[in-house]
Amino acid sequence: MKAVRIHEYEKMPSLDEVDNPKVTGPWDVIVKVGAAGLCRTDLHVIEGQWAPIQNPDLPYILGHENAGWVEEVGSAVSNVSVGDTVIMHPLVTCGLCPACRAGQDSHCSNSSFPGLNADGGMAEFLKTNARAVVKLDASLQPKDIAALADAGLTAYHAVRKAAKWLFPGSHAVVIGSGGLGHIGIQSLVALTSAHIIVVDRSEKALELAKSLGAHETVLSGDDEATLDKVKEITGGGADVVFDFVGEQGMEKVGPRMLKGRGDYYVIGYGGNVDLLTIDIISQEINVIGNLVGTYQDLVELMTLTAEGKISLTTAVYPLDAFDDAINDLDQGRLIGRGILVP
Amino acid sequence: MKAVRIHEYEKMPSLDEVDNPKVTGPWDVIVKVGAAGLCRTDLHVIEGQWAPIQNPDLPYILGHENAGWVEEVGSAVSNVSVGDTVIMHPLVTCGLCPACRAGQDSHCSNSSFPGLNADGGMAEFLKTNARAVVKLDASLQPKDIAALADAGLTAYHAVRKAAKWLFPGSHAVVIGSGGLGHIGIQSLVALTSAHIIVVDRSEKALELAKSLGAHETVLSGDDEATLDKVKEITGGGADVVFDFVGEQGMEKVGPRMLKGRGDYYVIGYGGNVDLLTIDIISQEINVIGNLVGTYQDLVELMTLTAEGKISLTTAVYPLDAFDDAINDLDQGRLIGRGILVP
Amino acid sequence: MKAVRIHEYEKMPSLDEVDNPKVTGPWDVIVKVGAAGLCRTDLHVIEGQWAPIQNPDLPYILGHENAGWVEEVGSAVSNVSVGDTVIMHPLVTCGLCPACRAGQDSHCSNSSFPGLNADGGMAEFLKTNARAVVKLDASLQPKDIAALADAGLTAYHAVRKAAKWLFPGSHAVVIGSGGLGHIGIQSLVALTSAHIIVVDRSEKALELAKSLGAHETVLSGDDEATLDKVKEITGGGADVVFDFVGEQGMEKVGPRMLKGRGDYYVIGYGGNVDLLTIDIISQEINVIGNLVGTYQDLVELMTLTAEGKISLTTAVYPLDAFDDAINDLDQGRLIGRGILVP
Amino acid sequence: MKAVRIHEYEKMPSLDEVDNPKVTGPWDVIVKVGAAGLCRTDLHVIEGQWAPIQNPDLPYILGHENAGWVEEVGSAVSNVSVGDTVIMHPLVTCGLCPACRAGQDSHCSNSSFPGLNADGGMAEFLKTNARAVVKLDASLQPKDIAALADAGLTAYHAVRKAAKWLFPGSHAVVIGSGGLGHIGIQSLVALTSAHIIVVDRSEKALELAKSLGAHETVLSGDDEATLDKVKEITGGGADVVFDFVGEQGMEKVGPRMLKGRGDYYVIGYGGNVDLLTIDIISQEINVIGNLVGTYQDLVELMTLTAEGKISLTTAVYPLDAFDDAINDLDQGRLIGRGILVP
Repeated sequence: MKAVRIHEYEKMPSLDEVDNPKVTGPWDVIVKVGAAGLCRTDLHVIEGQWAPIQNPDLPYILGHENAGWVEEVGSAVSNVSVGDTVIMHPLVTCGLCPACRAGQDSHCSNSSFPGLNADGGMAEFLKTNARAVVKLDASLQPKDIAALADAGLTAYHAVRKAAKWLFPGSHAVVIGSGGLGHIGIQSLVALTSAHIIVVDRSEKALELAKSLGAHETVLSGDDEATLDKVKEITGGGADVVFDFVGEQGMEKVGPRMLKGRGDYYVIGYGGNVDLLTIDIISQEINVIGNLVGTYQDLVELMTLTAEGKISLTTAVYPLDAFDDAINDLDQGRLIGRGILVP
Repeated sequence: MKAVRIHEYEKMPSLDEVDNPKVTGPWDVIVKVGAAGLCRTDLHVIEGQWAPIQNPDLPYILGHENAGWVEEVGSAVSNVSVGDTVIMHPLVTCGLCPACRAGQDSHCSNSSFPGLNADGGMAEFLKTNARAVVKLDASLQPKDIAALADAGLTAYHAVRKAAKWLFPGSHAVVIGSGGLGHIGIQSLVALTSAHIIVVDRSEKALELAKSLGAHETVLSGDDEATLDKVKEITGGGADVVFDFVGEQGMEKVGPRMLKGRGDYYVIGYGGNVDLLTIDIISQEINVIGNLVGTYQDLVELMTLTAEGKISLTTAVYPLDAFDDAINDLDQGRLIGRGILVP
Repeated sequence: MKAVRIHEYEKMPSLDEVDNPKVTGPWDVIVKVGAAGLCRTDLHVIEGQWAPIQNPDLPYILGHENAGWVEEVGSAVSNVSVGDTVIMHPLVTCGLCPACRAGQDSHCSNSSFPGLNADGGMAEFLKTNARAVVKLDASLQPKDIAALADAGLTAYHAVRKAAKWLFPGSHAVVIGSGGLGHIGIQSLVALTSAHIIVVDRSEKALELAKSLGAHETVLSGDDEATLDKVKEITGGGADVVFDFVGEQGMEKVGPRMLKGRGDYYVIGYGGNVDLLTIDIISQEINVIGNLVGTYQDLVELMTLTAEGKISLTTAVYPLDAFDDAINDLDQGRLIGRGILVP
Repeated sequence: MKAVRIHEYEKMPSLDEVDNPKVTGPWDVIVKVGAAGLCRTDLHVIEGQWAPIQNPDLPYILGHENAGWVEEVGSAVSNVSVGDTVIMHPLVTCGLCPACRAGQDSHCSNSSFPGLNADGGMAEFLKTNARAVVKLDASLQPKDIAALADAGLTAYHAVRKAAKWLFPGSHAVVIGSGGLGHIGIQSLVALTSAHIIVVDRSEKALELAKSLGAHETVLSGDDEATLDKVKEITGGGADVVFDFVGEQGMEKVGPRMLKGRGDYYVIGYGGNVDLLTIDIISQEINVIGNLVGTYQDLVELMTLTAEGKISLTTAVYPLDAFDDAINDLDQGRLIGRGILVP
């Protein structure tokens, strides 16, 4: 089959001809890929930023946001059948470790992460397992929802964790109304009754935010002015700040937008969070990490998608135009999420 | 009356003769001070570190850890009577703002903080209000428990927040077995079934920790060796790290002691927490701020004290030897908590 | 002033001329009543059903759902001023007992409950205190929102408690789309992403439910058929059943609508819940009591009302037509909530 | 192999010679039984009380509290090896359904329950699966811990759920200091700082309770006197009542022991809970069902057992004396838990 593989960090991947994956264990599932999302993490992977954390053997196939149709199943698989439309939780988990038993799929101690440390979905077929597949309504098209598998899931997961604090009268600030942020906004509208304030440096992104249900928008630029504006709208500070950027200086301004006892959710990454301990304690604020999401989060996100409450703007490329997609993303020409279709 | 007042930052306070406080509002309570605790925060106050946050008018009376006996009450006070033994919650709160309605006394938007921004308890009498007083069993002596009002409360509050995660098989690391830390250890023993690992640079402090119920102790020195030892004991990382130091480099090592989804509790202060966003998200760890405690926390702490589950080592000084006490604390000669008795 | 007082149980109250209430304590607030809601609890009060629980001295003024304008305040009141538009939390609380400190206003151990055990708001003026008043936007009219003070608050409180379980894909059943139930439905739409199924014996009530956002409606009649229908819609049982009726047999059917680990919320009352212990344990289901709501709940409900997400259908009567209102309610002629305006 | 099988309800089971179980699926685990606990549920099974709920084909092997050593494993089993000492979670679960994904093993929609609806452990060998086995320290003896697999797990599960409310100053009432109750008391001591009050009709059981850490004991007999005594000790009512009996009238008295907002935990069964809805709402009390426990609960319970914080009194019988054990249990002659050893 055809597959987009990374051979060396900081080099463009190549389209290779490789063997199809095969069922070797009782819980294996082979999926005919319908669509694979392209995201900023793929750029970070190519740059080598994930190498020390995930440490994959090169070459391997990119693609960690995948949806398609079941092609073949192992002997013990009972939850999906050949032909089912499925979206894949990004991690392939064991079901036996403490994290799996607690429903914390992202923390499985025996997992693989196709596209990050194992062969991913930018190919014609993908090998995953029974615990990773979410069966979908047959009417859903892989190309419309593949990018929800990781980017959407990550945004939803953060909002879902915070939802228990976001009741009427609370203020939620969303930093970055891009690929993740615009799913975050839709998730906030669907799950909470918070007053939603969106901060972005692009007027266009703020227009999108408004159309998705943001109550207020703040065009960022000068940090102090942005901060003052947020403090004014929130009457002194936000209950929760969702930072979908996590770099470019926003990770310095974000925690300062909180009111006492507020939570700063780190979702985007790249920069560093640097806070005086006296500021942490005198405000009793928290910094909350967020990593992908649980299988249950993905099921809920698919429910919202089927109900029409979450949707994605996408730009579709054929698999062999993967390099155009990567270049468009890298150079900011890509509107919405890039999707590769084999 | 006699009172220890701060007149200028970075100067030793002086013992002054001042007017006794008077009841002026319906909820006022005047307490005859039985004992006032001295803590590291008093040193930070004298250094001026709290000036930009609390902004008191100088001169004012120090002392934010107070216990004594009710001397006089305002017209609307129904929960204590003249002669009752009481310990004071450090904040004097309004009972009407959202934080008070939620039981979050430390976040009252109309509070005063005697000893930090209003006259405190290093004096013969203290003015507080009905919402700050916890009535105690008459057998309890103010000098034995005064230091629990702030230092003890802060340590207990942090443990209390974390207790819901600390079940059998979990690992709690305590950094610093000093004034706060040794209350933290006793609180962990009383409230949780966690395996308790204590890290300190003093052998003596570790001996105290052991005697209070710590399961393992680690003598710190070289950061990497400390970290390796904690990782080994915990089988890869702790569920919760309580940092009662928050400076001197421990705030850099502390977060690295966590396992995935772990919480780093900031209690001590002085340094800064500086984390790469990629480390926050790839481990999904949290940084949790802690500020004093709630009134309910103080009630619970007094219950544990009455049950003999929490006790303090103290060094008692007469009020007019306040400067000896301050010097002893500053120069590390003070064993346990310093207590001033008028 | 004019006031509707109950002199004897099972007799119609009378309109009496009584002295105006006066400020006597520092936290007192006198409110010029703008509107007082009439609800089924008033009928139960007249029947004497609350006498053994609330034990008021007769005669006393009815009316536990009140809104109006501040007329006079005690010396220590800082949160409202003369002329402010206010709605009253139904309980007048102390701010000092453990329940108040925990934000559980309905469980204050020193409270009074105007309209149930003290003079209520079916009069020209009402005496309450600083802790009971919620300041409103001046544009809100007491007659439009008074009935939210108790009926609305009770419905909202139950939904608010359950909201943390009601995520996408969950099923919430509402039994009874009447005075409380129709606020419950609006609260579910505002706070949760649950699939909402409403059960009522009136086609008209179900039409109202649909218009407010219910996803499915079930006309009740035969219990087994109702149960089968709910089981079919929910795929085996609901996550939460809100019983706004609590009598007339629905309290027998309600718990059977649950799936494993489901919660049956008792809000309406009159009947009894009778379950075999083996059914409780083999399904691990819970029965959850609900009593009025917290002050914070009322603040949130007013926020939703100001945002247009919650509204009431009302029938307004002048205060001296109180007997017509009571008769109309008792005989089922009253559409929406009855409101008395002095 | 030899096995104790039930052939007909309300008849004594018989010791039969049957085929050994065999590995047929990739996740199967065959365990050489070291010990099987006998409990009151076995009597209820023989009486046919569970037939309509579990609906097993007769004859089948009794025994739902099992521990032993791994004899053989399926191809996909990675978490245990031949020879490991193991205790079995009572349910054999799928790892794929929503309940399993949420860590709610007792609610797996594809589970079997050996001893209740499939062949259990009163035999020489037991077939279970990889998700049911908890690996133990080799020093632990199956006969000492087998009865913790269900009775102990059930008691622990209830206490674990309630632990988040049981802080210093709270009151926990334990009804019944028998097989489950005495594990419940030890769990309360290990996990909480509640004041523990134990109610039983046997002086001997109360002595055991005291020796395990109960703070107060109440000899039951006359219901009103028992209730008065509990109200007096608790100062008006308990935060949580754990009813390990659930029949014989205690299920009528138990809920009346609560204070406002209290929780009545149903663990024992046989009777029915019958409460007026007005009593449920005016006190805002809850009735909480409890079913076995999670796999994680069992892991934690084994940790406490290894730490010496939980222990069982047992009476050991050889497997072929099963009928003596059953008769002794039925007629109240059995002290502690009965254990059958093949």
